[in-house]
Amino acid sequence: MVSSPNAGPAGSTFRPVRYELLTLGDELLLGLTANGHLSFVGAQLGRRGVLLQRNATVTDEAATIEREVRRSLAEADVVIVTGGLGPTVDDRTREAVAAVLGQKLVFDESIRDAIAARFAQIGRRVAENNLRQAYRFEDGEVLPNANGTAPGLWFERDGKVVCLLPGPPNELQPMFTEQVLPRLEQRGLLFEREAYVQIRTAGIGESSLEVKLQPVLQPFGEALSVAFCAHQGHVDCRLSSPSGALDLGKLEEIAGACARLLGEDFVCLGHDSLGRVCADLLRQSEKTLAVAEAATGGLLAQAFSDLCGACKFFAGGVVCCSQDSKMLLLGVPECLMLQHGVASAECAVAMVAGVAESLQADFALAITGFAGSTGGPGGNPVGAMHVALQTPQGTWSRQLSYPGPRGTVKQRAVNAALDWLRRELVKAQRSSPATGNSERVMQ
Amino acid sequence: MVSSPNAGPAGSTFRPVRYELLTLGDELLLGLTANGHLSFVGAQLGRRGVLLQRNATVTDEAATIEREVRRSLAEADVVIVTGGLGPTVDDRTREAVAAVLGQKLVFDESIRDAIAARFAQIGRRVAENNLRQAYRFEDGEVLPNANGTAPGLWFERDGKVVCLLPGPPNELQPMFTEQVLPRLEQRGLLFEREAYVQIRTAGIGESSLEVKLQPVLQPFGEALSVAFCAHQGHVDCRLSSPSGALDLGKLEEIAGACARLLGEDFVCLGHDSLGRVCADLLRQSEKTLAVAEAATGGLLAQAFSDLCGACKFFAGGVVCCSQDSKMLLLGVPECLMLQHGVASAECAVAMVAGVAESLQADFALAITGFAGSTGGPGGNPVGAMHVALQTPQGTWSRQLSYPGPRGTVKQRAVNAALDWLRRELVKAQRSSPATGNSERVMQ
Repeated sequence: MVSSPNAGPAGSTFRPVRYELLTLGDELLLGLTANGHLSFVGAQLGRRGVLLQRNATVTDEAATIEREVRRSLAEADVVIVTGGLGPTVDDRTREAVAAVLGQKLVFDESIRDAIAARFAQIGRRVAENNLRQAYRFEDGEVLPNANGTAPGLWFERDGKVVCLLPGPPNELQPMFTEQVLPRLEQRGLLFEREAYVQIRTAGIGESSLEVKLQPVLQPFGEALSVAFCAHQGHVDCRLSSPSGALDLGKLEEIAGACARLLGEDFVCLGHDSLGRVCADLLRQSEKTLAVAEAATGGLLAQAFSDLCGACKFFAGGVVCCSQDSKMLLLGVPECLMLQHGVASAECAVAMVAGVAESLQADFALAITGFAGSTGGPGGNPVGAMHVALQTPQGTWSRQLSYPGPRGTVKQRAVNAALDWLRRELVKAQRSSPATGNSERVMQ
Repeated sequence: MVSSPNAGPAGSTFRPVRYELLTLGDELLLGLTANGHLSFVGAQLGRRGVLLQRNATVTDEAATIEREVRRSLAEADVVIVTGGLGPTVDDRTREAVAAVLGQKLVFDESIRDAIAARFAQIGRRVAENNLRQAYRFEDGEVLPNANGTAPGLWFERDGKVVCLLPGPPNELQPMFTEQVLPRLEQRGLLFEREAYVQIRTAGIGESSLEVKLQPVLQPFGEALSVAFCAHQGHVDCRLSSPSGALDLGKLEEIAGACARLLGEDFVCLGHDSLGRVCADLLRQSEKTLAVAEAATGGLLAQAFSDLCGACKFFAGGVVCCSQDSKMLLLGVPECLMLQHGVASAECAVAMVAGVAESLQADFALAITGFAGSTGGPGGNPVGAMHVALQTPQGTWSRQLSYPGPRGTVKQRAVNAALDWLRRELVKAQRSSPATGNSERVMQ
C-alpha cells in the first residue's frame, strides 16, 4: 500500500515517520500465544493514518533484544517494544533496552508504591521479584499501569521515541489508547483521524472483486492505492491516497460508486462484522433473532453475544451437538434424525423452526453438519454443512461445502449464514419504505 | 529459552539450524488479520524441537520484501515466507524472492492445469490474473495446493532452504504439515518428536509459581531451561534442556516432581486445554455436562464443542442474554430476576439447575454477569461475574471479579468455571478407586 515512510494527506501537519513494533517472547515464536499486540497496535495506528512498517518477533534473550532494538532504532522514528517486563527471570527487556540507549535504570519509589498498593488490594504481600518492575530509565518517563504491576516506560531523544509496554493485553491496550496515542499525537507523529476508506463485501471472491471494481478504480491511477484482504467468506477492499492527491471526501465518493456497482454483495463501509451489520438491521426493524447450532458449537451465537446491548435483539442460542439435546431443547423429532441424519437439510429446518418457536423470535438461523476432517456417516462429505433460515415469510435451507480444516469450515459456515440473513434483512428493509439504512450507505 | 542456533538433545542426528519466518501483508500490519501463521508455524516447529528464532512482518512492496528476504537469508538456514502469492496486483512475493535468489520464473503447465481443474470444479473459468500463480523458480520445486490456486514454492541451495507458502490458513496449514515438515525432516533439519515438557497449571499466579517451583528446578542450574507463560487464568511452565544435558525422560521426571508439589493447581502435562481436561475426566467417568451462559455468550460452549466426539459427554449449551430467554429456555422465574437481577448468584444457580434439568445432565455450569466496561445496574461492578456449578452432590455459586476489557473478563470467567469443574471432577475421581487418570499424571 503506502511506501515507507508514512505520509499524510497534502497540507496536513502530520510529520511522515516510520513506526516499528518489536514483540518479544518465546511463547509467541512457539505459537503458544497469538501475537495480539501486532493486531491491536497495527489497527490503532492504521486508523490514525500510520501504516506500521515492520513488526519483528524475537526470542527474549538479552543479546537478541539488544540487536533488534538497535536495528529498529537505526531505521525507525518510533519503536514500540512489548513484553518481557514481568517479574520472572526470563523478563529482560528493561535491562536490554537500557543497554542500547546507554541509560541507567533507577529505582522509582512511585512505581514501588503503585505495585504495593495493587498487591494490598488483592490481599497479598509484594513478592521480591516484583520489585524488579520498579525501575525506569534515568532520563525516561513512567506510564502508569492501571491493570497490572509493570508500568510502561517512555524514552525520547533526538526526535526518536522508544516505548516499552507490558505484555498482558488487558494492561497494554488501555495504556496504549489512553497514554501512548495522545503522546504521539501531541508530537505530531499521528494523523488525528481515520485515513482510509474500507469497502466490506461478501459473496464475491477476491479476484472477481478486483476485476469488477476495475472500471471505477482504474481512472485514478497512482493517486489511488487499493488493497484487498480476503477473510472467510468476505473480502475487504481498502482505498487510500498516500500522496494526498485524493482527500477523504473523494475516497468516500469512490467507495460509494463501488458500493452501487456491487449491489447486494456490498456489506458496509468500515470495519463492522457481518454480525454487527445484521444486528443493526434487526434493531432498526425491531425484530429478534434466535440461533441453533450443532457443528459450529457456539460460534454463531458469539457473533451476536459479543455486541453491546445484544439482549435487545438477540433472543438467544442453543448449542446442541448431541441428538438428545436437539430433541430436548428444540423438539426435533427423533424419527426425523433417524431417517435423514443430524447433518441434513431436514434436521436444519426442524432445528430452525424449533429454536424460533422456543424463543419466540422473528428470525432464526440453524447450522448442522460435519465440520471435522473425516466427514460424517451416510456419505456426508467433509465440510458439508446445512444452514436453515426462518423469516416471517417462511423457512429455507441450503447446503454449503467448504473443504478445509475444522476451524475454517466452521467460520465459513457462520459467515455464510450471517450473509444470508443480512441479504434477507436488507430485502425486508427495502420493501418497507419507513426505514432507510441501506439507502444511506448505497446512496 | 534456547539460544540460537537450535540444538537437539545430545546424541541426536538433529543438525542445529536457524529458522526465520517472514509474514507479508499490510493486512497484518494494519491489524485486520491476526498473524495466525506465526502461531501455526511456530507451534509446529516448536513441537519438533525447533524454536523459531525470528518472525518479521513487513509491507508487501517488492523492495521491502527483497530487503527482508536478503537479510533473513544471510542469517538463517531455513526461511519460510508466507503470503503475497495471490492473483491481485498487490501480490509480489514470487517476483521479489526470485530477484533475491537470482532465479528466473518459468511458466509451469502442471500448475496451470491444477488451477484450471480447480476452477472447473466450482464451475468458473480461470481468470486471467490467476495465471500469474502458474510460475515457479527455474531451479525450484512446486508444492501442490489441495485447497486453493496458489501452489507453494520450494528452493534449496548450499544447504539453505527458502519456502514460499500461500497466505490463506486453510491452504498453508495442510501444505505445511503434509509437504514442508516431511521435507525438513528428511534433510535432518527437524527433531523427530517433541523436545520440551510443559507443565500446565491453574489457580496460581506466574510469580508465585516461579517461587513455588524453585526448590525443584534450581538444583539443575544451567542444564535446565525454564520458561513461564501466563494465559487468562492458567500459567504454563516449559522445561527444556538446550545443551542436551537432560534427556526427555529426565525432564518428565522433573515435571512429575513439580506436579506433586503443585497438587490440585496442576492441570496436565502438555497442551490440553482446560476444556479438554474436563472432557477427558467426564468421558472416563461416563458423565455428561450442560452449560448455560449469559455474559460469555457461547464461549463456554465452544470450550467443549470444539473437541472431537463432544456429543458423547457434552449434553449441550444455552446462550441466554435476555431475561426472556432465561425464562423460556431454562425456566428461571421472572420474580427471581426482578428481585436479584440477572447478574446475581441466585440467577446463576437457577440457570445451572434449569440447564441441568432440561438437558438431563450430571454436571452443569452457568455464567452470568456484566463483562462490559460499564458495569451493570444495581451497583454491579465492572467485570463482576457469577458462576454456578451443579454436581451430583449439590449446587454452588461463586462471584468472580476481574476488571479488564470485555474479552479478557469473558475468557477469565470461562477459565475459572472450567477450572472449578476440573477440581470437582478430579475429587470425584479420587474418591472412586476404579479409575486413575489423575494418579497416572501425578505419579
